[in-house]
Amino acid sequence: MARFEPKDPDFRRRAAALFDAQPAMRTLGISLVRLDPGEVELAMPHATAFTQQNGFVHAGIITAGLDNACGVAAFSLMPADCDILTVEFKTNLIAPARGERFLFRAQVIKPGRTLTVCEARAVAAHDETVIATMTGTLMAITHRA
Amino acid sequence: MARFEPKDPDFRRRAAALFDAQPAMRTLGISLVRLDPGEVELAMPHATAFTQQNGFVHAGIITAGLDNACGVAAFSLMPADCDILTVEFKTNLIAPARGERFLFRAQVIKPGRTLTVCEARAVAAHDETVIATMTGTLMAITHRA
Amino acid sequence: MARFEPKDPDFRRRAAALFDAQPAMRTLGISLVRLDPGEVELAMPHATAFTQQNGFVHAGIITAGLDNACGVAAFSLMPADCDILTVEFKTNLIAPARGERFLFRAQVIKPGRTLTVCEARAVAAHDETVIATMTGTLMAITHRA
Amino acid sequence: MARFEPKDPDFRRRAAALFDAQPAMRTLGISLVRLDPGEVELAMPHATAFTQQNGFVHAGIITAGLDNACGVAAFSLMPADCDILTVEFKTNLIAPARGERFLFRAQVIKPGRTLTVCEARAVAAHDETVIATMTGTLMAITHRA
Repeated sequence: MARFEPKDPDFRRRAAALFDAQPAMRTLGISLVRLDPGEVELAMPHATAFTQQNGFVHAGIITAGLDNACGVAAFSLMPADCDILTVEFKTNLIAPARGERFLFRAQVIKPGRTLTVCEARAVAAHDETVIATMTGTLMAITHRA
Repeated sequence: MARFEPKDPDFRRRAAALFDAQPAMRTLGISLVRLDPGEVELAMPHATAFTQQNGFVHAGIITAGLDNACGVAAFSLMPADCDILTVEFKTNLIAPARGERFLFRAQVIKPGRTLTVCEARAVAAHDETVIATMTGTLMAITHRA
Repeated sequence: MARFEPKDPDFRRRAAALFDAQPAMRTLGISLVRLDPGEVELAMPHATAFTQQNGFVHAGIITAGLDNACGVAAFSLMPADCDILTVEFKTNLIAPARGERFLFRAQVIKPGRTLTVCEARAVAAHDETVIATMTGTLMAITHRA
Repeated sequence: MARFEPKDPDFRRRAAALFDAQPAMRTLGISLVRLDPGEVELAMPHATAFTQQNGFVHAGIITAGLDNACGVAAFSLMPADCDILTVEFKTNLIAPARGERFLFRAQVIKPGRTLTVCEARAVAAHDETVIATMTGTLMAITHRA
């Protein structure tokens, strides 16, 4: 994978702040494990409160983790004065979200001034089983005076 | 839209039971508003616990509602002895999830013995603003002795 | 569906010109049947040259028609000085592309200054069987001096 | 990437035959360059007949190549008595299809008895620029007596 140069040297602090500013991440117990330019890993413990009918974590919750990993990865390459929003994503559910802990790994495929494309995978932490994949498009929103 | 004949006359009870069996729906405050053969409407109140950095409901949470609406809609047309799982979905985020209450409306586009394709929309209840769209594929898993 | 106001009164001529400027459309035998603000219908005859192993039109060719219908629909609502490109699309293949003639119908779901979201369906002309659905995102590229 | 064991030792001949049986591949000038269990590379020359308004290969044609690469990759892992069909795919267009020759590389992410998930990339042959990505779901159709 290509390595990316962050436009903002302060990208770590800024991307972590974006993550911390989202109550949904706290509620889902998702934490930021690793952050490099254009690459992110999040972790989430299994929680019965977020399961579906068979005791696996709900596909929508897995998607929330994947989407956020993509968002933070894309954001890490954006200039300092941007906000970010998700344009679209597509998730393939590969295996049931079985396990005690899940990892969401995203990387930027193509950064852009306006649009950034990311790929992400959700895996079970204990055996790296791929649970789901995502391809998503994120948009930089420039703050204006 | 085509009207569909349920294969199981007891589809209402069975689809409602599927919905009730999911802790994630309870945790997110999502309720089943309407259920017809191949058509479902769910509702979710705004909850700060599930917002992103700008106070809007997180895209992943909106996706959880859309996915579940698709799942229940597909399930309503399946035979009595099936379980269901989501194969994949794609979400376009159209507008911020702003408002006090959100509706998730799904309908079956193509039912099938193995695969069912659904479309869904998330709208703000107060003004019907479209927040997100989903196209998803659901799979019937037949219980075997 | 919402009706849209074109930004450019000359949108018909401009959208038809975009369509005519694409050699791929001519090669595939695709023609522009109907064009309204934010709504388009294209038609394509069956051609053995574009089939897959079972004699049905190849999914990629169906996708070319769907993508183009989305592009022209989105373009019809853009200002006069734009070019357009496709950001992404997702296609669900619903039924084999069987028949003598196929229609690609697209409509804008959400127009935007930068991004426009469209939905489209491919149907068999003789019986309106839905062959495929598409959701796509198109981007306006503003010409600069 | 995981290596896969083909179920059918004769998978090469069978997958090549599937490819050859598609008139659309011949018409588009697409050829099979490499085939391993669950991995495929196809090549396509630039052809003006399949371009859009700016002289780049049409996104739908790129998608036809990506879809076919996914199909052959998935098919290579299926048992001998199957046919295959595409359930759905999603394409992100990353860069204009500029160049003299394009490669479509697909690999199976998750093989399955019924459904197989693949990822693919279209690149320009001369400089490996990523033109488009695909995630797709393919379905095995078992022949019955």
